[in-house]
Amino acid sequence: MALPFATNMRFKFSSLALSLQVILIILFAIFVSYDTPHHEDSHGNSTHQEDEFIKLYPLFQDVHVMIFIGFGFLMTFLKRYGFSSVGINLLIAALGLQWGTLMQGLWHLHDGQINIDIKKMINADFSTATVLISFGAVLGKTSAVQMLIMAIFEIAIFACNEHLVVTLGAFDVGASMIIHAFGAYFGLAAARVLYRPALKNGHENEGSVYHSDLFAMIGTVFLWMFWPSFNSAIAEAGIDQQRAIINTYFSLAACVLTAYAFSSLVEHKGKLDMVHIQNATLAGGVAVGTCADMNIHPYGAMTIGFIAGIISTLGFKFVTPFLASKLKIQDTCGVHNLHGLPGLLGGLAGIVAAMLGAKEGASAGIQAAALAATIGVALVGGAITGFILKLPFWGQPPDQNCYDDSLYWEVPLDEEEQPNHYQEDQSKMKVDA
Amino acid sequence: MALPFATNMRFKFSSLALSLQVILIILFAIFVSYDTPHHEDSHGNSTHQEDEFIKLYPLFQDVHVMIFIGFGFLMTFLKRYGFSSVGINLLIAALGLQWGTLMQGLWHLHDGQINIDIKKMINADFSTATVLISFGAVLGKTSAVQMLIMAIFEIAIFACNEHLVVTLGAFDVGASMIIHAFGAYFGLAAARVLYRPALKNGHENEGSVYHSDLFAMIGTVFLWMFWPSFNSAIAEAGIDQQRAIINTYFSLAACVLTAYAFSSLVEHKGKLDMVHIQNATLAGGVAVGTCADMNIHPYGAMTIGFIAGIISTLGFKFVTPFLASKLKIQDTCGVHNLHGLPGLLGGLAGIVAAMLGAKEGASAGIQAAALAATIGVALVGGAITGFILKLPFWGQPPDQNCYDDSLYWEVPLDEEEQPNHYQEDQSKMKVDA
Amino acid sequence: MALPFATNMRFKFSSLALSLQVILIILFAIFVSYDTPHHEDSHGNSTHQEDEFIKLYPLFQDVHVMIFIGFGFLMTFLKRYGFSSVGINLLIAALGLQWGTLMQGLWHLHDGQINIDIKKMINADFSTATVLISFGAVLGKTSAVQMLIMAIFEIAIFACNEHLVVTLGAFDVGASMIIHAFGAYFGLAAARVLYRPALKNGHENEGSVYHSDLFAMIGTVFLWMFWPSFNSAIAEAGIDQQRAIINTYFSLAACVLTAYAFSSLVEHKGKLDMVHIQNATLAGGVAVGTCADMNIHPYGAMTIGFIAGIISTLGFKFVTPFLASKLKIQDTCGVHNLHGLPGLLGGLAGIVAAMLGAKEGASAGIQAAALAATIGVALVGGAITGFILKLPFWGQPPDQNCYDDSLYWEVPLDEEEQPNHYQEDQSKMKVDA
Repeated sequence: MALPFATNMRFKFSSLALSLQVILIILFAIFVSYDTPHHEDSHGNSTHQEDEFIKLYPLFQDVHVMIFIGFGFLMTFLKRYGFSSVGINLLIAALGLQWGTLMQGLWHLHDGQINIDIKKMINADFSTATVLISFGAVLGKTSAVQMLIMAIFEIAIFACNEHLVVTLGAFDVGASMIIHAFGAYFGLAAARVLYRPALKNGHENEGSVYHSDLFAMIGTVFLWMFWPSFNSAIAEAGIDQQRAIINTYFSLAACVLTAYAFSSLVEHKGKLDMVHIQNATLAGGVAVGTCADMNIHPYGAMTIGFIAGIISTLGFKFVTPFLASKLKIQDTCGVHNLHGLPGLLGGLAGIVAAMLGAKEGASAGIQAAALAATIGVALVGGAITGFILKLPFWGQPPDQNCYDDSLYWEVPLDEEEQPNHYQEDQSKMKVDA
Repeated sequence: MALPFATNMRFKFSSLALSLQVILIILFAIFVSYDTPHHEDSHGNSTHQEDEFIKLYPLFQDVHVMIFIGFGFLMTFLKRYGFSSVGINLLIAALGLQWGTLMQGLWHLHDGQINIDIKKMINADFSTATVLISFGAVLGKTSAVQMLIMAIFEIAIFACNEHLVVTLGAFDVGASMIIHAFGAYFGLAAARVLYRPALKNGHENEGSVYHSDLFAMIGTVFLWMFWPSFNSAIAEAGIDQQRAIINTYFSLAACVLTAYAFSSLVEHKGKLDMVHIQNATLAGGVAVGTCADMNIHPYGAMTIGFIAGIISTLGFKFVTPFLASKLKIQDTCGVHNLHGLPGLLGGLAGIVAAMLGAKEGASAGIQAAALAATIGVALVGGAITGFILKLPFWGQPPDQNCYDDSLYWEVPLDEEEQPNHYQEDQSKMKVDA
Repeated sequence: MALPFATNMRFKFSSLALSLQVILIILFAIFVSYDTPHHEDSHGNSTHQEDEFIKLYPLFQDVHVMIFIGFGFLMTFLKRYGFSSVGINLLIAALGLQWGTLMQGLWHLHDGQINIDIKKMINADFSTATVLISFGAVLGKTSAVQMLIMAIFEIAIFACNEHLVVTLGAFDVGASMIIHAFGAYFGLAAARVLYRPALKNGHENEGSVYHSDLFAMIGTVFLWMFWPSFNSAIAEAGIDQQRAIINTYFSLAACVLTAYAFSSLVEHKGKLDMVHIQNATLAGGVAVGTCADMNIHPYGAMTIGFIAGIISTLGFKFVTPFLASKLKIQDTCGVHNLHGLPGLLGGLAGIVAAMLGAKEGASAGIQAAALAATIGVALVGGAITGFILKLPFWGQPPDQNCYDDSLYWEVPLDEEEQPNHYQEDQSKMKVDA
């Protein structure tokens, strides 16, 4: 079988990863310090800065779980691509949190330094989420080298767009726009550039098995549970933060009911579809993000979740096939339905909430401008990154090896696949005399 | 194969779920508000209310994990029923936390409003636990429609019984009685009404496979780890809450040793049985619940856990078969052994602790009355609910399709089951030209 | 097939487990109390002691997850040994946390009592980690009885060594030396004594299958995420604790990049190896432990993680086969590479940090003495324990049954293995008329 591209990653991947890490250490040596409290309490009591760190640390850890377990396992639904899903997710996020610290911090230097506190760590984790969302759009069709490159570009562009949105004066506490819509449309633009005509009728590996769907549910449920932390982690302490938690809690609950109802409604014989359950149940968390800390009342949050569950499920059923067949966008995980459409809904909800005066200082026009700018930056940035990723020397998989771990990983043969049971096991031994 | 009931859920399920969600949003619009702090600190410092919210938020999230990961994955032990276990668990709990907010809150209105704070969210999660426990008793033998109906009835009845117990003046900080015993006996009464004679010799799907038992251990271990949070989340801040954490921590540890010892003692050749390990190791958390915040000393907590591990394991070995063959109660998950018997033990321990003066204000007589009332309400409520669920139009599965996801879910065929590998994969493609 | 040892555990195991638990309850009755706050605030406000408990409780729970989910699932990579990995892990840790409370507390009695507070609970969990690490070295080759015995000995010796290190005046906040290096070298010494010549060419069960590797990744990722809590949980509140969190966060991120790079570099065709990804990505958490709370700057932490990822991956590739073939040490999980070498690196980093003045009061000589003492105590203690475990009546598995759950567990036959589908299922029924 002739491979169109060289997929042996030994030197390309390892030299890129090591170079990036060395550069990051040098940049950290120059730019990054601990955040030292400036105003120490004369009685030796904990200061505000210390209190904030330890108070927000549990929310940081919830976000951390969403990034590494949530996103990682959500993508393990593919039958032969679980190692890459959870493994490359870890790789991208580990790179991304270091790079995101720098890219976001460079806009806020103090005496030339980025002072690490708990909010910077939360934001660093947030910045990786954009790449992990885009990863979902191109899942199974890219190499680890390509994903490292995408992480570098996407996080840099994300940090610029975030700064733009903040400068405009828009609100987006739970990042419906600047993370979810951004990550989705960035990834979809890249996927459009990386379109593979040979996969237009699907691929035998592009499906789940029973237990891979259960692994994916680990990701789904952790994302679902901790989304209130995601939407409130950088909210202002006190009533704003509490509202963000409460609104997200109820939006997600309402979203589950509509996602299940519409999954049954659109499927054969009224059966539930795991793809919807794994993804559309989370749309309420995305969609309530922008106005999570606003005074939208719990029933307002539930209404947003209600709508999000519907559009996300309908998106999987009708929009994803349309994107694939008409727009040549092959969206492996359906990130358009989990992050794209609900992110747009979140942006629109923010505009409406601003109109209704749910947040002091919020302007509908500015919210709309932030949404438009974000989509524009994402599409252009994603397309440019897509063209870079399309260069033929990044070890991308040939069509027939898409969605297959064994191209890039040592994969154990399962029992039933082993031509010779004992022979195979010998080759897997760690200890070999 | 003729099906005795129509199991196509398309319109029944989706219309019920959507109607419930619309009604909930309307009720929330009328009755539910944020809890706004009344006494703001003049210096802009965080008030007591704000402090409590963020201090208890990590405990809330632990309880949240127990509800959605713990209960959900614990029930994935069945070989062909993992989608329903974790999926319907999510559905019931998402409905239940909204409904529980209303049912519990209606007993404590302020100016006609339920003001959401962190304890209301914890209690909302708690209220769902009752249904999830009952779900375990009827697992594999009910439809999603039936479970939505059970959730509505059970949570309403639970909230009344809880109010009764509080009004009596009984203590039950970790809810051995009002959640665990209540949920178990409610579910067992319903299971008795829903008895299926055709399953009296078991069913070929009613068993585990190797990896389904490992998925279930995810649920077990998360429940085990976070039980100290469950038993302490609504305890009085300070020494009471700390005692609840410490007592639960040591009770669970002691329970593990006895559960393992008795599993080995009663099994063939002294082998361990996964059913015991998955369930009986948790009985110490249930049984120490009522007196978790009392001054029972760590060794007292360990003694409770010690006994709980024994009765739970023996329950699985001897009581469950007896219930099935003599009382016609088919308890799929053995909730009687994990929640019923240990819940009773918890209630009894509370009576003894009250006698010994371990809690100021506690009365043995009132504790006993609360226990008796709870069991009575649960049995009557469960039986009535069972008769409602028995009506022949809720889409319950025919006997031969029990414990089988494929009746209600789109289930991927696993590789080895595929009659034609490529053909099957074509049908699973998301993208179809 | 003649078994060299009696492996029926019914009476040996259950009587040992029950006796230990009864003894523990008696010792707790004599020695263990709640920590009652001595200085109550006259205004009824929460005291320092109460604040510390609830502030550190989330970090305790993170450590708890590492012990029970992290270590437990990390070891499920073996295809037929998942029940034992997660199940015996739970058993050992449940015993160990009770025993560790006593062994550590006996060095710090107040009025003859051990007063349980949150730091004692964190330390109790820590003490179990040593045994769980050693368990990894002998995984698949020991019985539950042997592991209970190892837990009793190892935790007692650990507590003595920890006291010695504290008395010397050495620093080891994240326990690179006293937990990780100690647990690894203790386990390796025991594994040396328990050497099995018949396994020198490996064993057919000593390998993974696709989904067992995914289960193991649950353990890996939870360990990775919560390691900042492990390294900071008992640090001094304030800037020290924050530094421990920040340093561990960045060390782990850097370590991921080098572990991936070197895995690809040393493997066939540049493929990634799951063994490296599951383990070497964590080496940065181990290695930064000793100096986690020191002023080593974020780039210093990243440098430590960078090196740790490299030595750990190279250890798996080159050192483990060497140990097996030349030193007759069969290290099932490769704990030498995850805990041993990175633990040594952590100890060395602590010496260098002390030299550079990164911690007030730290002395390079004392750090070196602590490291040397720890390794010495671990090797001697492990060897002695190994000889005790080698006594021929602890039910150790015969060579041909190593790495196989079915010797000690009721294991369900998977579908494809069932000679007669219906017959097998009958035997798995819980309900049998």
